[in-house]
Amino acid sequence: MLSGLVEPAHPGAVREVLEDVHELVRSLVGQGRVADYIPALAEVEPRRFGLAVATLDGEVTGVGDYRVPFSVQSLAKVFALAAVLGADGDQIWGRVGREPSTHPFNSLVQLEIDRGVPRNPFLNAGALVTTDRLLTLTGDAAGALRGFLRAESGNPALDSDPRVADSELAHGHRNASLAHLIASYGNLENPVPEVLDHYVRGCALSASCADLALAGLFLARGGVGADGTPVLSREATKRLNATMLVCGMYDGAGEFAYRVGLPAKSGVGGGIIAVVPNRCVLCVWSPALDVCGNSVAGVAALEHLTARTGWSVF
Amino acid sequence: MLSGLVEPAHPGAVREVLEDVHELVRSLVGQGRVADYIPALAEVEPRRFGLAVATLDGEVTGVGDYRVPFSVQSLAKVFALAAVLGADGDQIWGRVGREPSTHPFNSLVQLEIDRGVPRNPFLNAGALVTTDRLLTLTGDAAGALRGFLRAESGNPALDSDPRVADSELAHGHRNASLAHLIASYGNLENPVPEVLDHYVRGCALSASCADLALAGLFLARGGVGADGTPVLSREATKRLNATMLVCGMYDGAGEFAYRVGLPAKSGVGGGIIAVVPNRCVLCVWSPALDVCGNSVAGVAALEHLTARTGWSVF
Amino acid sequence: MLSGLVEPAHPGAVREVLEDVHELVRSLVGQGRVADYIPALAEVEPRRFGLAVATLDGEVTGVGDYRVPFSVQSLAKVFALAAVLGADGDQIWGRVGREPSTHPFNSLVQLEIDRGVPRNPFLNAGALVTTDRLLTLTGDAAGALRGFLRAESGNPALDSDPRVADSELAHGHRNASLAHLIASYGNLENPVPEVLDHYVRGCALSASCADLALAGLFLARGGVGADGTPVLSREATKRLNATMLVCGMYDGAGEFAYRVGLPAKSGVGGGIIAVVPNRCVLCVWSPALDVCGNSVAGVAALEHLTARTGWSVF
Amino acid sequence: MLSGLVEPAHPGAVREVLEDVHELVRSLVGQGRVADYIPALAEVEPRRFGLAVATLDGEVTGVGDYRVPFSVQSLAKVFALAAVLGADGDQIWGRVGREPSTHPFNSLVQLEIDRGVPRNPFLNAGALVTTDRLLTLTGDAAGALRGFLRAESGNPALDSDPRVADSELAHGHRNASLAHLIASYGNLENPVPEVLDHYVRGCALSASCADLALAGLFLARGGVGADGTPVLSREATKRLNATMLVCGMYDGAGEFAYRVGLPAKSGVGGGIIAVVPNRCVLCVWSPALDVCGNSVAGVAALEHLTARTGWSVF
Repeated sequence: MLSGLVEPAHPGAVREVLEDVHELVRSLVGQGRVADYIPALAEVEPRRFGLAVATLDGEVTGVGDYRVPFSVQSLAKVFALAAVLGADGDQIWGRVGREPSTHPFNSLVQLEIDRGVPRNPFLNAGALVTTDRLLTLTGDAAGALRGFLRAESGNPALDSDPRVADSELAHGHRNASLAHLIASYGNLENPVPEVLDHYVRGCALSASCADLALAGLFLARGGVGADGTPVLSREATKRLNATMLVCGMYDGAGEFAYRVGLPAKSGVGGGIIAVVPNRCVLCVWSPALDVCGNSVAGVAALEHLTARTGWSVF
Repeated sequence: MLSGLVEPAHPGAVREVLEDVHELVRSLVGQGRVADYIPALAEVEPRRFGLAVATLDGEVTGVGDYRVPFSVQSLAKVFALAAVLGADGDQIWGRVGREPSTHPFNSLVQLEIDRGVPRNPFLNAGALVTTDRLLTLTGDAAGALRGFLRAESGNPALDSDPRVADSELAHGHRNASLAHLIASYGNLENPVPEVLDHYVRGCALSASCADLALAGLFLARGGVGADGTPVLSREATKRLNATMLVCGMYDGAGEFAYRVGLPAKSGVGGGIIAVVPNRCVLCVWSPALDVCGNSVAGVAALEHLTARTGWSVF
Repeated sequence: MLSGLVEPAHPGAVREVLEDVHELVRSLVGQGRVADYIPALAEVEPRRFGLAVATLDGEVTGVGDYRVPFSVQSLAKVFALAAVLGADGDQIWGRVGREPSTHPFNSLVQLEIDRGVPRNPFLNAGALVTTDRLLTLTGDAAGALRGFLRAESGNPALDSDPRVADSELAHGHRNASLAHLIASYGNLENPVPEVLDHYVRGCALSASCADLALAGLFLARGGVGADGTPVLSREATKRLNATMLVCGMYDGAGEFAYRVGLPAKSGVGGGIIAVVPNRCVLCVWSPALDVCGNSVAGVAALEHLTARTGWSVF
Repeated sequence: MLSGLVEPAHPGAVREVLEDVHELVRSLVGQGRVADYIPALAEVEPRRFGLAVATLDGEVTGVGDYRVPFSVQSLAKVFALAAVLGADGDQIWGRVGREPSTHPFNSLVQLEIDRGVPRNPFLNAGALVTTDRLLTLTGDAAGALRGFLRAESGNPALDSDPRVADSELAHGHRNASLAHLIASYGNLENPVPEVLDHYVRGCALSASCADLALAGLFLARGGVGADGTPVLSREATKRLNATMLVCGMYDGAGEFAYRVGLPAKSGVGGGIIAVVPNRCVLCVWSPALDVCGNSVAGVAALEHLTARTGWSVF
């Protein structure tokens, strides 16, 4: 029953698989709807597609637009959480849960039911709490996040796109509503406008598939970062992966686990990071989204890739 | 950071680990609350504890009451779903989802919002739909399920406890309410009383940790059953494991993934089955439950066991 | 500002107003959708329209099909509640609330949130509870209800339509679901099938606008029934009217209070009863319904009638 | 059955009834919990009690602290809505509904479900929308509201309490959350901070029972204001009363209609205004609240008063 599975043994073999996958999803690229809640995102060319694999040794292989920076949006939530867990241990779990949510990513309903404790750190509400904590810990949450991504990706030019950040702030009534609601339950340590500002600048970071696959590599390496020292303990890393699998794909977590079977996080910029523990990290980008807010071609590419390689945690 | 992990290499080593785990959770056994919604379950001795591991070769090692039969309750849902998937392929997914639910296992709220399509097959509502399908496919859903468990566990004496079944039917207003609601949306093929009868007799099956670890072994063996032939394809098996991880522990799925990191299913009889793909299947039993309906000592035992052995999919 | 209001002083003047109203709503008759959840209701001619006024002295004036019997459906809920309040005093309020519901009339969501205590007696769930109590009190809830309507309307031929009752039972999964859910919380005194049977036969009563306006006259007469003795105390009658105003029109209660300003109850057969305290009772019938389940032409007729006469409690 | 009802025929008779009522509720005064979400309200002496009746001729009779100013809080919502309806006609109903809500007065859940259109103008969310409209219409919503209350009450000293207003702004995360959520759906015309500022200053108005009974007199007089000219048309006044009856008492609307049977509005300052159409307006004040946020002694006083006088719309 394993016939057809090809465990790619070297970069050349990986590239071949990636190219096949690219071919298989070509007709899906551009299908779905580009996020248009802010003008700066709505302008992105929907037919972009990039796919990169970073292996444990830090080697990156990619196809398509895998070196083109895009808006990381919610992918930032993984790195912000990792930064907080690394600096602060498990304390953050007293302020945010780790259960899936059946409500949309920016919903207030669940947050009110749970009295200001977001269901998980990958909802906007949860990421506002981790941003708040990172701000307390560092004095500059957006700067700390950028520094983390630069260090792990090895790309010192990686930066926030001020046009996206300004655009998000100007259209950010929904996030402002979430932040004030959390604050009303006493679950923010810093003033709402500052938390929103840092949150938005984190979401507005631009990075490529190559950057992000490298930046996430510690998740496949038991927590060991680019410089060989631990970003997180092995235990905390396993747990972060578990939380990604259960909560990382908005209301499509079950579907993604079923089709792909990897811990992953998506963003409305069209990016998805997926972790193959002890093997590699994948990053795919294609801006057109499905109704859950996940990249249509991105999910399909990961499904083909894992079917082809047998990469799955199950 | 891996110091302390002991991959048990032989049955003797496994037993030693299980004994250590038993020791570690001894003070938790009996903590929580035994399911008391039917008299037949309420009478179970809360201080029972059993833990068994079945390895790929069909060897079982266990400690405590691992050979004492208990009421499988919702553990039956995994086997009923596997039986339907094996006989019928993916068709069932048109009638039941695979997303986690944030509502309790027997809630009607979500079912009404989703117009009669249960969120996943591990909720009571979802299992009523799979039971209904199994009834259509076999003419005797409860019998088919019993046959499946007997064949896979190798225990021909495994049977339904009529006292439990009668007790559940007599106190089964909640399940009757769910079944009628599903039927009102046209999502049942058989009459409500028949579906309820087969569902209840499936839940009332009695089996031991040893039986259940063996019966679930196909989940760790890429779908290959006790007789060496496939119960499910490798792909379908991966997907079933994925759905268990995301949906198998009621509203505690995120917490369980975080603490244990394995696909699993719990039942209100106090049993939990957990899958370590390509390695083994675990079954633990201790009747006292936490607020989510999961065995307190059982979850703790699996947490210690996986921390000790490094068994985790992440 | 009162110019245009004509308080009709005698039956001839009332008839003239009713004829004007009939003319004004003629174009609306048939607009909307006839209830089609059971075949027996779906066959009703949508262009029917009847309107009757019963004044305190027991005089009835009407236009259109006001002597044609139709299926009373939820209008029965008012009479069943009155019968229980009359026999049993305020005890029923321990088992059913009197707050409006924002969910549809046959929703399970609210019922589960409120743990088996229906929000008010005019939801299906609430009427199942009052039917259950009436069954306990009389041994024959459907018979008692029929007797009540016969006595108050003075029509000894008034009866249940067995075709409608059978059709409702055969398509009654939703009500069965509600009844089992209520029973699961211990809020039914009689077996579910018996409660459903009596409930359905009460809904299946056939009566005309004339019958129903007369039958409801005690609501405008401080509780005094057709034979001059109290059906309810003055206080209980005021309170029943208050509950009708707040809860009687499903999710359209606020809209109806705003447009018409009278205590009222509607049924999916297309009937509406409205009370002008100390003056008269109105009953209108037209089968085509709006999205809330209220008769389109019926609501419009009551709005014109009250605008013309100044009849309103406000 | 009418024995015991005393329709008070002259101010002396009214005073006697009010004194009796005061005596009857004396033991309840102070029971419940004073609103403590802002320090300025938490300091109010819980044992205060005032009750006033303003008859159609503009005469006021009162007992207890009926001339002591208190924080009007949500009572302002009635006057803000009247001011908007008077200036703008029915347009506001396109931006706010008139159905009861089953969620607490400051809930975001319903608002999100209804996509930014508040269920009714007596929820905080709804009052933010009417304040926004009043701001557009007048350029100074708080000033217009104060002017309205001064003119109708005849009290030129009536003013906003800056300590309360500042305290509410400082603790106003919940209202800020609501306002941003409404704005995110495009249902605000003015900037969020300005709307909040005017809203809070309106809630912070201080007025006595005497002031408020007089200020609301147009509601009992078919819309005719203190100077004999219409504040609202007779039709609009009836409709405003209807909306108050259905929506004015938070989640206790059904209970209040059942016990008291009058259109009314309550505020967390402990005040309640109730309208007896074509007869009088009542205002009661006692700061300790029940779980719905309604004054315990205030509701009881209105229940006794209406039982004694027969004042009720039913």
